[in-house]
Amino acid sequence: MTNIPPDVSLCYSGSMSRWQPDAPLRLQQAAMELFLEKGYEGTTVAEIAQRAQLTQRTFFRYFSDKREVLFFGTERFEAAVVDGIREEKAADPLERVVTAFEAVAAGHFDSRAEAVRRRRSIIQSSPELQEREGQKMGRIVEQATAVLVAQGCDAGTARFAVELGVLVFRRAFEQWAEAEGTTLAVTIRTTVGQMRALTGTPPPS
Amino acid sequence: MTNIPPDVSLCYSGSMSRWQPDAPLRLQQAAMELFLEKGYEGTTVAEIAQRAQLTQRTFFRYFSDKREVLFFGTERFEAAVVDGIREEKAADPLERVVTAFEAVAAGHFDSRAEAVRRRRSIIQSSPELQEREGQKMGRIVEQATAVLVAQGCDAGTARFAVELGVLVFRRAFEQWAEAEGTTLAVTIRTTVGQMRALTGTPPPS
Repeated sequence: MTNIPPDVSLCYSGSMSRWQPDAPLRLQQAAMELFLEKGYEGTTVAEIAQRAQLTQRTFFRYFSDKREVLFFGTERFEAAVVDGIREEKAADPLERVVTAFEAVAAGHFDSRAEAVRRRRSIIQSSPELQEREGQKMGRIVEQATAVLVAQGCDAGTARFAVELGVLVFRRAFEQWAEAEGTTLAVTIRTTVGQMRALTGTPPPS
Repeated sequence: MTNIPPDVSLCYSGSMSRWQPDAPLRLQQAAMELFLEKGYEGTTVAEIAQRAQLTQRTFFRYFSDKREVLFFGTERFEAAVVDGIREEKAADPLERVVTAFEAVAAGHFDSRAEAVRRRRSIIQSSPELQEREGQKMGRIVEQATAVLVAQGCDAGTARFAVELGVLVFRRAFEQWAEAEGTTLAVTIRTTVGQMRALTGTPPPS
């Protein structure tokens, strides 16, 4: 964001002004409304800017395209998960990954459940958005694997533990999003139990 | 393919003729060579047809674009896995999925290991190809889940078992592709053991 001194910022006011510290959130809110009303494909950047009472120029100061509006703040989630794995003390690598997801669930999901569920329904409506969402989880896998390896885990075990942890998170997220009444953190722990039950039977041989 | 009676087919001969029962395989072979020589992005359909001594018109009779050349025969693999799950007798749903992958590994991978490894290196070179490969695994997840549900498994358990089985297959495939000397079937079984070891520790609660 352009760093405008306070006195100069007083020159700008009204809905179309340039000095808009809340612009990204307003644009995100407007985009979510429009995506739900008209569909993701049918919404233009011009309409999002108009609904937010901002210019398209302001839109492009924060986002490269309409897709990126839905991924605003995603880096904070990715960093929180990876930092959580780095700081987690459990010896079991899968447990470290799952505990890190559990720890970020309250702040990133349970505290804004309605917005997260709306965002999910928009993502589900578009293969392009699903691909972008997949890239986000792919980055978490890469970074989390690197953290476990740096702490002495062998590379193959680290990656497998992270992929299993991400699978648990994704399944828990789907279940939480579809059935209200419990927190994502609790659903993650229930899902780990389901995985242990599914994988617990030794092979027949 | 156009159904030409034998007598008429005698009118066509030579490398540019229309009657080419082996055309898809020749085009696939030519495409693989060119993708490895010049890269996937840098290869055109015209070059693939020329290398295979066929016309572009023949190319488009079999494939909608150059990407599809790499996915020729993919439906047979998908169907073999899903049929395998349907016919497998084990009670444990994860074991049914893993056993089905194990059963198709010999015919679809170990018997043509070099071609599979070359194809993998091309897929890895392009996000577009990786996305298409992901769609293939996504279809297997959908169909395999439906088979388990039709046989009495509850939907959530079925999907989770299939996703875990697919994760085992994907990890086994990566390890097999990078380290020669063992079969994919054996690698799948080793990977199941690794998963059981990773998930076996009960949560500390």
